[in-house]
Amino acid sequence: MSIIGIGQLPVREHWERSLQVMGAEAVVRALEDAHLERPEALYVGNMLSGQISGQENLGALIADHAGLRGIEALKIEAACASGAAALRIGYGAVAGGLHDVVVACGVEKMTDALVEETTTALVSAADAIYEGEHGLSFVALNALLMQRYMYEYGYPREAFAGFSVNAHRNAVHNPNAMFRRAISAETFARAKMVAAPVSLLDSSAIADGAAAVVLAPTEFAHQHGLCAVRISGSAVATDAVALHDREEPLVLTAARRSAERAYAQSGCGPDDIDLFELHDAFTIMAALSLEACGFAERGQGVRLAMEDAIVPGGRIPISTMGGLKARGHPVGATGLYQVVEATLQLRGEAGECQLPGCRVAMTQSIGGSGANVVTHILERMDA
Amino acid sequence: MSIIGIGQLPVREHWERSLQVMGAEAVVRALEDAHLERPEALYVGNMLSGQISGQENLGALIADHAGLRGIEALKIEAACASGAAALRIGYGAVAGGLHDVVVACGVEKMTDALVEETTTALVSAADAIYEGEHGLSFVALNALLMQRYMYEYGYPREAFAGFSVNAHRNAVHNPNAMFRRAISAETFARAKMVAAPVSLLDSSAIADGAAAVVLAPTEFAHQHGLCAVRISGSAVATDAVALHDREEPLVLTAARRSAERAYAQSGCGPDDIDLFELHDAFTIMAALSLEACGFAERGQGVRLAMEDAIVPGGRIPISTMGGLKARGHPVGATGLYQVVEATLQLRGEAGECQLPGCRVAMTQSIGGSGANVVTHILERMDA
Repeated sequence: MSIIGIGQLPVREHWERSLQVMGAEAVVRALEDAHLERPEALYVGNMLSGQISGQENLGALIADHAGLRGIEALKIEAACASGAAALRIGYGAVAGGLHDVVVACGVEKMTDALVEETTTALVSAADAIYEGEHGLSFVALNALLMQRYMYEYGYPREAFAGFSVNAHRNAVHNPNAMFRRAISAETFARAKMVAAPVSLLDSSAIADGAAAVVLAPTEFAHQHGLCAVRISGSAVATDAVALHDREEPLVLTAARRSAERAYAQSGCGPDDIDLFELHDAFTIMAALSLEACGFAERGQGVRLAMEDAIVPGGRIPISTMGGLKARGHPVGATGLYQVVEATLQLRGEAGECQLPGCRVAMTQSIGGSGANVVTHILERMDA
Repeated sequence: MSIIGIGQLPVREHWERSLQVMGAEAVVRALEDAHLERPEALYVGNMLSGQISGQENLGALIADHAGLRGIEALKIEAACASGAAALRIGYGAVAGGLHDVVVACGVEKMTDALVEETTTALVSAADAIYEGEHGLSFVALNALLMQRYMYEYGYPREAFAGFSVNAHRNAVHNPNAMFRRAISAETFARAKMVAAPVSLLDSSAIADGAAAVVLAPTEFAHQHGLCAVRISGSAVATDAVALHDREEPLVLTAARRSAERAYAQSGCGPDDIDLFELHDAFTIMAALSLEACGFAERGQGVRLAMEDAIVPGGRIPISTMGGLKARGHPVGATGLYQVVEATLQLRGEAGECQLPGCRVAMTQSIGGSGANVVTHILERMDA
């Protein structure tokens, strides 16, 4: 199966666009890119439309606004991994022969509410009864993880600077990124605390955005002479939602399982991956993902940032278009931004962000503080 | 593909159970019924968990509570058709060879909020900007449809009594139904108005509930000697979300399209259906569904109720275990209650609700006032 079209909106505050208009624009752009007019189904990844915009039934709504009234259209939710989950469901629909051409779209509008309201809504990614009710915000959960990591392995918080510096430097060249300004390690060190030790520059920002991809069987792409990127691995794995229920909070077991399944399907391993678009919602998540997916030993993920192994040209480039940190993190859309960006890299269309010789890319989205993880492996196909 | 296990909780106010506990109970019961312990994936249909319970990431949460930590688990939303949509996604996952055994579960908890809050949350099934913002509740939308139907075709509101009388009479024998008390046409005529002409006895009630089914390839069922009900048709179709955007508000185009696709897949037509579990959230929806699915001409759906064609033993029995009206309508769970009940009928295990000689059943769930419609056709398999 292949990705034959991609579309995205710039990540920012989209005051002038409703959820359905944003979603529809991304869908239409992806269809235009695929030179197709009417897919047979649309799967929409979204987390917060009910809580923030009082709008569910988002599949039907976006299908209609994209001019696709009548087609199958459903919404998929897996917290901050909702966009990647929509791709996973689209993958299943095409693999199962339910449809030939489908669109997976991720859309999120987080800025149509007070910041406190959005912060409260985001806690619904955690365990509402055992975490949310006790006042833990999503930043606080990540602060607990980061503090424990620093304590257990003996790092200062400045050790995480490289993740943020790399993301911001790469975003400068991505016209769809929210923060297109490079930062230095000194700026990182001086950044305001949000929930110690998580600072503003460890955290991705609340934002609006939408991204979409068109999927079809690879033969379909060949028959129609379309530029195709093959999906060679697609997997989802879960863990306990509440941090205190995990066997080992500093090991992202679901990320490990999800990556292992995707590796097994594609026949790849960590050494074959040229690009890893990971879920750097917080710098600690980047470190833990790198460990879970086999790029570093336990407690060594942050060293990849310290040693510049994650920058373009390094051993395992990440966040090459800015990542969640600097491109922005409209939660339910993020998984598809990652896939759109990886597709651009594999097609050789990433402009000044382009990695030379990029042939195999991995994307990974994390819903909650590690509870629901979706991994995809994408490969360039040569004629 | 086949349904090899079913589980349900009684529909009522479940004060003592959280969302995750309810969902997990239904999943565990369905797995016990299938004599299996661990499926490979779980798809959870739910509409309101974010708005009412401040809880998303429901797939991972319910998987963990059901003892299935680690498996693929996602939430699917299509307003009041969310449960049926989860079955649809499970169907795709098994058809695509992604997994052999999966569970589709529907769960909803609507009573953990003030009635006004739940009423507001339900409007998110409609168009929030063009309907919700103008104060239209979901009952009001159905009242507009019912009024127009009565005006255009010349029926009094008493013509709808048969839908409610049949549903309540059938629910008497269903231990999982919310309202197990028969009513008369006179009671219907005297019922309190909610939004004229929709009365209390035209409307399904707010409730909590969870239901689940286990899916596997039919060969798997045969190999393991399991009692299997075959899914011979599965389809989703959409329409405009807002009533005023529809070409013809009194025609449920999405229901018609969805049924046509399911008929074509299964090789059945309306005449082959022994049982139709339809979406009688309001009596007007029952009438319009019967018309859309080919059981009555336009404007004649209500006549099937007037002529007792919808009762057990009639031409097209509906709501045989109480329907949404009397079993209760925990929105995101309803689609799977319908499928569980149809499976009981096809297995010959429906107790005093049993229809003799039931071989082919159709279930249909409607998300919004007709915007997103999921149809399944189920068939009894003889050894």
